[in-house]
Amino acid sequence: MVKPLLDTLSGAADPEGPSPVWLMRQAGRYLPEYRALRAEAKDFVRFCLSPDLAAEATLQPIRRFGMDGAILFADILLLPHALGREVRFVEGHGPVFEPLERPDEVAVREGWQQVTAPVAETVRRVRAALPAETTLIGFAGAPWTVLTYLIEGGGSRDHMRARQWAYGNPAGFQHLTDVLVETTVEYIAAQIEAGADAYQLFDSWAGALTADGMERWSLAPCVAIATALRERFPDVPCIMFPRAAGPMLTRFAVNGAFAGIGIDSAVSPAWAATALQPHAVVQGNLDPALLITGGEAMRSGVRDILAGLGGKGRHIFNLGHGITPQTPPEHVAELVALVRGEA
Amino acid sequence: MVKPLLDTLSGAADPEGPSPVWLMRQAGRYLPEYRALRAEAKDFVRFCLSPDLAAEATLQPIRRFGMDGAILFADILLLPHALGREVRFVEGHGPVFEPLERPDEVAVREGWQQVTAPVAETVRRVRAALPAETTLIGFAGAPWTVLTYLIEGGGSRDHMRARQWAYGNPAGFQHLTDVLVETTVEYIAAQIEAGADAYQLFDSWAGALTADGMERWSLAPCVAIATALRERFPDVPCIMFPRAAGPMLTRFAVNGAFAGIGIDSAVSPAWAATALQPHAVVQGNLDPALLITGGEAMRSGVRDILAGLGGKGRHIFNLGHGITPQTPPEHVAELVALVRGEA
Repeated sequence: MVKPLLDTLSGAADPEGPSPVWLMRQAGRYLPEYRALRAEAKDFVRFCLSPDLAAEATLQPIRRFGMDGAILFADILLLPHALGREVRFVEGHGPVFEPLERPDEVAVREGWQQVTAPVAETVRRVRAALPAETTLIGFAGAPWTVLTYLIEGGGSRDHMRARQWAYGNPAGFQHLTDVLVETTVEYIAAQIEAGADAYQLFDSWAGALTADGMERWSLAPCVAIATALRERFPDVPCIMFPRAAGPMLTRFAVNGAFAGIGIDSAVSPAWAATALQPHAVVQGNLDPALLITGGEAMRSGVRDILAGLGGKGRHIFNLGHGITPQTPPEHVAELVALVRGEA
Repeated sequence: MVKPLLDTLSGAADPEGPSPVWLMRQAGRYLPEYRALRAEAKDFVRFCLSPDLAAEATLQPIRRFGMDGAILFADILLLPHALGREVRFVEGHGPVFEPLERPDEVAVREGWQQVTAPVAETVRRVRAALPAETTLIGFAGAPWTVLTYLIEGGGSRDHMRARQWAYGNPAGFQHLTDVLVETTVEYIAAQIEAGADAYQLFDSWAGALTADGMERWSLAPCVAIATALRERFPDVPCIMFPRAAGPMLTRFAVNGAFAGIGIDSAVSPAWAATALQPHAVVQGNLDPALLITGGEAMRSGVRDILAGLGGKGRHIFNLGHGITPQTPPEHVAELVALVRGEA
């Protein structure tokens, strides 16, 4: 069975073929059918944990645009939610937690997997409905990024409290990281057992750490997760996305634990081709702003990325960050056609 | 006259000497004497444009800690303020503008230099009071970063509106950039004529651009500014700080227009030593979070930076971003002593 995206990650892709394509947050508010579906469950956590709704959200962009990859519809904060750190999503504001006061407030809590069981059920339903050639991508948040939300009590501009915990109380921070490594392995394993072909670790705030901090709190725990999962599922590749990691991206690429490395839009495709692509498949990196703008600006951005990274069987086309709600769906259709050489 | 910081930038420093040190936002709210001074002029723009108050704020950290560089106390948004885009600073929120609706709303406006004249007067007063060995550093915002504030109407998390203007209307954005290049040259020239020894261009949001966008909207206008100023003031070096530029930092370093390149805390000192230092003096890059934490975490961070970048006469010690208000002043004193090998 040819699965262009999975085959690229496993090194079996035809180098003559186009770069496979999927887009971060391809299921989401820019799609009118998604907004209609969301109206059926106002509470976002309940929406994510309803397999029928989450499976439908996952499939919507595939039906419309036929990307090579379908990313499970879920949220990186469902895992800490299952560990007893209850998350609420406040309209127009984002996720809110009771901020952590002490590291020992988080532990592997008995029965947490019952809370996330609907996520695996979503994967099962998506797999059953998905075209056979479409790669199903599971995901989780990287421990560092998840911890920024728990420590700050939600999103924050500079993650200053989390950084101070990491630098000022490394033993406590290691405990928190260990809990997340252990549970993330099980959380992803359940997704794989339910039918995920590959998975991505999102470290959206990696770039808020120092280079040293990134080694310890971003790279090391993600290597631990990917290594444990590879032992159990040797054919299921990991895509690591350490956003804004800058020159530290090379440390992730040469590690060997990750089949793919996601790059943000500030990274030059030419640099990534030289520094990263010899070591890992590179995924990225169109600016979501160009997908809103469309037209020649978007086309030129796509051409530059394909010229730098495409044509070697070592590139997955994606954005450098998630699609935003104001994106015209017709630009997404044109983008997919462009990547495939059909526009 | 030995001026360790200026000498480092001009290539005349003793390689055996310690790295000269100054800290971004070293004059500011973490100092009790600054908070007392600020009480004398509640309005922040009025404070910045009062030479007696701004000069005193500039001098306070020098008196207390004796850094090698004094950075002019001012704000990157005074220049657009002088161009008729009035800025208000709202307590606990930051700067607020009437957002731009069209690029032609900004032009070189007659008499704008009268508005910023007090800034040059501040430089004059600081120069007169400063120890002769202390380098006086002027500054301005880079056009891209200033434009994000004008277009978004203030600070923003992702600068999405500014990015869309840059990509979607490059001719209009070029007009805005040209106005800022032309006026920034005159604004810095006035600071130099008043006694600034060197100057820094702050491109705090460079990393929000694509690699291509960074070439066009961050690198090119800053090269234009630095080149024009070098013709008039060949002995006054420029430090360029393109924050979060990632691997694109090399493009700034090899350009030759900038004597110094500021790096943020996500950059590994070892990488910067190899990729940047052969081409430019490197300035940075302790995480301001470590300056809050203090103790062994801070000391270890300082040691790593000095081990990677120091001892060659090609390094200026600084933070990777500005000091935050919660920083204990005694940590700053320890930091300066550490860099000088006196602690």
